[in-house]
Amino acid sequence: MSTTPRPTAIPGPVLVIGCGLVGTSVALALTRAGATVHLRDVLPQNARTAEMLGAGTLATPATVALAVVAVPPDYVAEVVADTLDEWPDAVVTDVASVKHPPLQALSDAGTPGLERYVGSHPMAGSERSGPTAASETLFEGRAWAVTPHATASPEAVELVRELGRTTGATLVEMPTDEHDFAVARVSHLPQVMSVLTAARLHGGPADHLALAGQGLRDVTRIAASDPGLWRQILHANRLPLVELLRDVRDDLDELLDGIERTHVIEEVLDRGVSGTRLIPGKHGEEAAPQLAVVFVQVPDRPGELGRLFRDTGESGVNIEDLRIDHDLGRPVGIAEIAVRPERAEDLTSALTERGWTTYV
Amino acid sequence: MSTTPRPTAIPGPVLVIGCGLVGTSVALALTRAGATVHLRDVLPQNARTAEMLGAGTLATPATVALAVVAVPPDYVAEVVADTLDEWPDAVVTDVASVKHPPLQALSDAGTPGLERYVGSHPMAGSERSGPTAASETLFEGRAWAVTPHATASPEAVELVRELGRTTGATLVEMPTDEHDFAVARVSHLPQVMSVLTAARLHGGPADHLALAGQGLRDVTRIAASDPGLWRQILHANRLPLVELLRDVRDDLDELLDGIERTHVIEEVLDRGVSGTRLIPGKHGEEAAPQLAVVFVQVPDRPGELGRLFRDTGESGVNIEDLRIDHDLGRPVGIAEIAVRPERAEDLTSALTERGWTTYV
Repeated sequence: MSTTPRPTAIPGPVLVIGCGLVGTSVALALTRAGATVHLRDVLPQNARTAEMLGAGTLATPATVALAVVAVPPDYVAEVVADTLDEWPDAVVTDVASVKHPPLQALSDAGTPGLERYVGSHPMAGSERSGPTAASETLFEGRAWAVTPHATASPEAVELVRELGRTTGATLVEMPTDEHDFAVARVSHLPQVMSVLTAARLHGGPADHLALAGQGLRDVTRIAASDPGLWRQILHANRLPLVELLRDVRDDLDELLDGIERTHVIEEVLDRGVSGTRLIPGKHGEEAAPQLAVVFVQVPDRPGELGRLFRDTGESGVNIEDLRIDHDLGRPVGIAEIAVRPERAEDLTSALTERGWTTYV
Repeated sequence: MSTTPRPTAIPGPVLVIGCGLVGTSVALALTRAGATVHLRDVLPQNARTAEMLGAGTLATPATVALAVVAVPPDYVAEVVADTLDEWPDAVVTDVASVKHPPLQALSDAGTPGLERYVGSHPMAGSERSGPTAASETLFEGRAWAVTPHATASPEAVELVRELGRTTGATLVEMPTDEHDFAVARVSHLPQVMSVLTAARLHGGPADHLALAGQGLRDVTRIAASDPGLWRQILHANRLPLVELLRDVRDDLDELLDGIERTHVIEEVLDRGVSGTRLIPGKHGEEAAPQLAVVFVQVPDRPGELGRLFRDTGESGVNIEDLRIDHDLGRPVGIAEIAVRPERAEDLTSALTERGWTTYV
């Protein structure tokens, strides 16, 4: 099913330092595109696993055109500096979630060869981690931020762009500080809010949680992510994050102060509704398209979802999005199939004809 | 596909007052179970639509065994009092999201017949509203809270239980004040946190949102819900909600004060992780089971999802949960199929044999 990748234009061997989920996925995508990839990890087992998965070789390279530093945020600046020193002809990038602090540290330290360093950040990950969670397709169609700095050489910037393109990602270019403000808003703040919501589940009687529904599950899903990694990310990006958290506290105080006055509550709610409309939808559209949702009852037995989607497929109506909702003790699940509004009736008719119970 | 409902034991006609999503769904479920249902709405068009959908009749009942008040939160106490007065032999319930304030108001006013009133609250809804969004199966397997008060007659409590059972819901019984604390925690707080996160999407350059991923979408999904309804809910339940919001503000202050110290950040994150483990999973299990996720690439063409699920169905492996992930410009979608860990390899083999690209 995979699209055939075009050969990479990276003109020499690539060294991937750090064979976790992201590093190994980068290595797999590069190998697939014809690059010679060398692997290194402070944990030899990680590098060996990545090699066994076909991500590259453990052999020491003779030369390195591009080094990709895929280590935890706390170690990025140090490993980038060492790598610039060890491979004086290589362009060096990293793939960490925060971009300005490591650049600042490298710059403050007067790191030689800094013109050969250009940070980047693929917007892909998983609640899972380690090389076995890696995939050559992890970055396909995802945003890949490239964050040049004033003294970066144009050739280095172009090579890091080529890295992103080789993995199938969509390039987004912005300065490091802008990048950090952006991810504080779209990634780090939601992480904190999800965590604060989940943390409040402590302290109530257990049977209160019997009333939990899908909304709670959605809001708290990412709160289950690795606290060790997130500690580093939030700490590294604390300056923009603190600004946003203070704004949230202001909104919260406004709500607490105004909770007796329903117009204040509604103003806060309205800002939330309009905020959700700013999130880009599928295919990079300006905002999420209005979709119709067809609800279908699905008995909780093997094969029923298969039958439903075969029938859906035969209707010829494209599925824009899909969610399975199930709750405690429910004998049937509900599939929520999102389609273009003008196709909802076609889908409903097709499914009803085939014996499904649907509602729109 | 619907399970055959057992006949309801409600011993007479039911009057449903308010033909929105929840009222009409209750009426449909009761009609399906053999009850005689009468419909009423201050908006005649809503009642007529509900009647056309088969939810009941617009004729005025001669007697009423049970009246179900399904009006917006702000009007519950008033309509319950009027209904107790109008039908002196009827048991009266309501289905609003907040249970203590209307009971308090009725009690403070010395409402005659209060022993015939027992509040309830089905934990089901939709981002959509109105009678056309209704379904006779909306409550199947959902929690349905029944909230008796000290002066309620046992017969009234039992009749409201029978209402919940008739719709296929799972009964959860607790006093009104406990109910309100529970929903503040599992429903109203997540709503506010989702709204506050979405509200922070304003104020940044639009291209920052190009970096948005699935986490942001999940956290902010419910922030798009009807602000007019949520204003009433949050205002009605402000007392327990304010307690939780103050706790959140304390956590937020702890994080802001301690953001320079990574162990403070990690403590906050750990509380979130352990909070997510308290949420009950499918089938009313104590907590969400550990599932394995199989990732499958799905080209963005009609019928591909149908083919995938037909192939999945033929593998004989039951799907526990499913999510479709798509991001800007991505030529393929990723289906995340959650299965019992011991079945992950069976599914992966079956799909790979049939030409799908999968990773675990």
